[in-house]
Amino acid sequence: MPYAQEMRSNGVKSPSSGKPGELALLARIRARAAGAPDSTLRLGIGDDCALLQLRPGEQFAVTTDLSIAGRHFRLDWHTPETIGHRTLARGLSDLAAMGARPVAAFLSLGLPRDLIQSSKRRDPSRETWSETWIARFLDGFLSLAEAHQTPLAGGDLAESPIPVADIVLTGAVRRGKALLRSGARPGDLLYVTGNLGGAAAGLALLAHAARRSRSARSQAPRIPASLKAQLAPHLFPQPRIAQGLWLARRSLATAAIDLSDGLSTDLAHLCNESGVAAEVNAAALPIHPGATEAQAIHGGEDYELLFTASPSVRMPRSIAGEPVTCIGRVLRKSGNRPPVTLITARGLRPLAPQGWEHFS
Amino acid sequence: MPYAQEMRSNGVKSPSSGKPGELALLARIRARAAGAPDSTLRLGIGDDCALLQLRPGEQFAVTTDLSIAGRHFRLDWHTPETIGHRTLARGLSDLAAMGARPVAAFLSLGLPRDLIQSSKRRDPSRETWSETWIARFLDGFLSLAEAHQTPLAGGDLAESPIPVADIVLTGAVRRGKALLRSGARPGDLLYVTGNLGGAAAGLALLAHAARRSRSARSQAPRIPASLKAQLAPHLFPQPRIAQGLWLARRSLATAAIDLSDGLSTDLAHLCNESGVAAEVNAAALPIHPGATEAQAIHGGEDYELLFTASPSVRMPRSIAGEPVTCIGRVLRKSGNRPPVTLITARGLRPLAPQGWEHFS
Repeated sequence: MPYAQEMRSNGVKSPSSGKPGELALLARIRARAAGAPDSTLRLGIGDDCALLQLRPGEQFAVTTDLSIAGRHFRLDWHTPETIGHRTLARGLSDLAAMGARPVAAFLSLGLPRDLIQSSKRRDPSRETWSETWIARFLDGFLSLAEAHQTPLAGGDLAESPIPVADIVLTGAVRRGKALLRSGARPGDLLYVTGNLGGAAAGLALLAHAARRSRSARSQAPRIPASLKAQLAPHLFPQPRIAQGLWLARRSLATAAIDLSDGLSTDLAHLCNESGVAAEVNAAALPIHPGATEAQAIHGGEDYELLFTASPSVRMPRSIAGEPVTCIGRVLRKSGNRPPVTLITARGLRPLAPQGWEHFS
Repeated sequence: MPYAQEMRSNGVKSPSSGKPGELALLARIRARAAGAPDSTLRLGIGDDCALLQLRPGEQFAVTTDLSIAGRHFRLDWHTPETIGHRTLARGLSDLAAMGARPVAAFLSLGLPRDLIQSSKRRDPSRETWSETWIARFLDGFLSLAEAHQTPLAGGDLAESPIPVADIVLTGAVRRGKALLRSGARPGDLLYVTGNLGGAAAGLALLAHAARRSRSARSQAPRIPASLKAQLAPHLFPQPRIAQGLWLARRSLATAAIDLSDGLSTDLAHLCNESGVAAEVNAAALPIHPGATEAQAIHGGEDYELLFTASPSVRMPRSIAGEPVTCIGRVLRKSGNRPPVTLITARGLRPLAPQGWEHFS
């Protein structure tokens, strides 16, 4: 984890000069990440490991997600703030899907030297540290972290020919209360939070703008101000931490997963781990305004929760401010039908996993 | 963490065919990583998060280390088994430095497609999965993991233009027993386990062989059989888990750090975090056979423990089979002297951090 060590071995010997050097930046990371004293995070950045202390009866939840430039984000499409936000959102969403409260984040960053040092201004001597790519990445990252009271407790920093970010989230969940993928039972109802397809629709809009900009020989995609709100689900997805906690606390869900790769793919995972099948009612899908049905079904990165509950549960219409929609039910697994079926106005059809393929 | 999800989103739709497909490989990872049921690891690969349960009175230690091709390893110098071993050793060594027992490892791997699919045989149709680069990487990784009873509990897998591996280690340490960098006090004695410089000497040997092979137009560095043992400290470093546990259990050390970047750099970190200075007696250094004094002082990746203890402690000559050597002492910080001083036959000289710079 030692940020400082890695930068030292990267050959940065002197924190001097008024320019934004790495050591100065690392001191800033440490200062910003430290936050208030915390009963859970006992030791943060600065030692060989961070130390975390849970409350009695709690288990530790751990998840990691690797983001790679050109695959999970694009430097020419996404601002550093967006990339920072999205990196953390991926990890937080995995905690949400377990019903865990966030405890601490760890961030391993591999960056080309120019993203650490420079803001790519024409006159680098006039840049300030807050304008550098990495500082802006951390702005996006730490804003979301602060919103979810998640301290940055460690990580690693290295020079890399291409930008990579591995996010590790640790969380806490009461023993026996974690929402697993494996608990769905035939007869359970299938629910999603929020609405679906917004991230894929935003991405499509961004790709369209990028093609137009390229033909106009402009550098970054230009989005008309009137359309910017439509990009938000893609650029700044909101992990459903509060909803996961609510479900876990009340033991209302039998299984849960976050929609990172798209409903068709993630529902297949849930069915596979639970040993069940499922049917989805297309007419019931809460499709994001401006998104298509295909984007709602196969689009990834909505980071809503997909969960199952017994039909005897009276599910509220919204949880912590987000709507909850029943979209289908869990069936017994059978050789006679596909694992997941979509019920449409024109009849039944198998719903094969066609998860979003990032930027490949 | 979802290995399965990532590979799905990487466009792998079918686990069929006799060839070593990704899904077959992922099933193998999961099967091998599962291991015996464990009272600590309650849920491993296959859900959104892993779940870990500590014993009462224990704290969690968490560390991450990012390894990047061309910087921390080289595909043309290192076998996949070595790279897997070294990736895990970096993380385990951070746990050792805290006196923590390993609980579970998480591995985020970004790999070019050919390293996932192919063994680079001339006839790919004849390859078996165990010959692929990733399978051999896992062999090296899991052999060391098994030696330290550390299950692989999760991670992520993505396609990447260059190989990257982020290792996350979680460990457990009794509350108040962790070995910190910050506890050294003036008057304490300075100790190291094992001997120093072996990794740097091995790397130098490898670099020399690589230069010779290049002039002979051979692909990989050829090492004479008689010299192979000298490469071991570089290729297969051994994290000092048993020694860290021993020190923590007995509360004998006031501070500790692992020697990942070299004595000169890591001692500076320890002094900085403890707010002290130190002097090292050059004549006392346990230099690895075949290594130079400079390699012992500045060479990185020995992964021995550097620790401090009160002079009133009767330190044994070896801990868990590894020799322990007193190499100097801790001094009060003073504006009149450098943070770290080296005592040589020709007098005192400042010891500036000159940690190893990987492959830059």
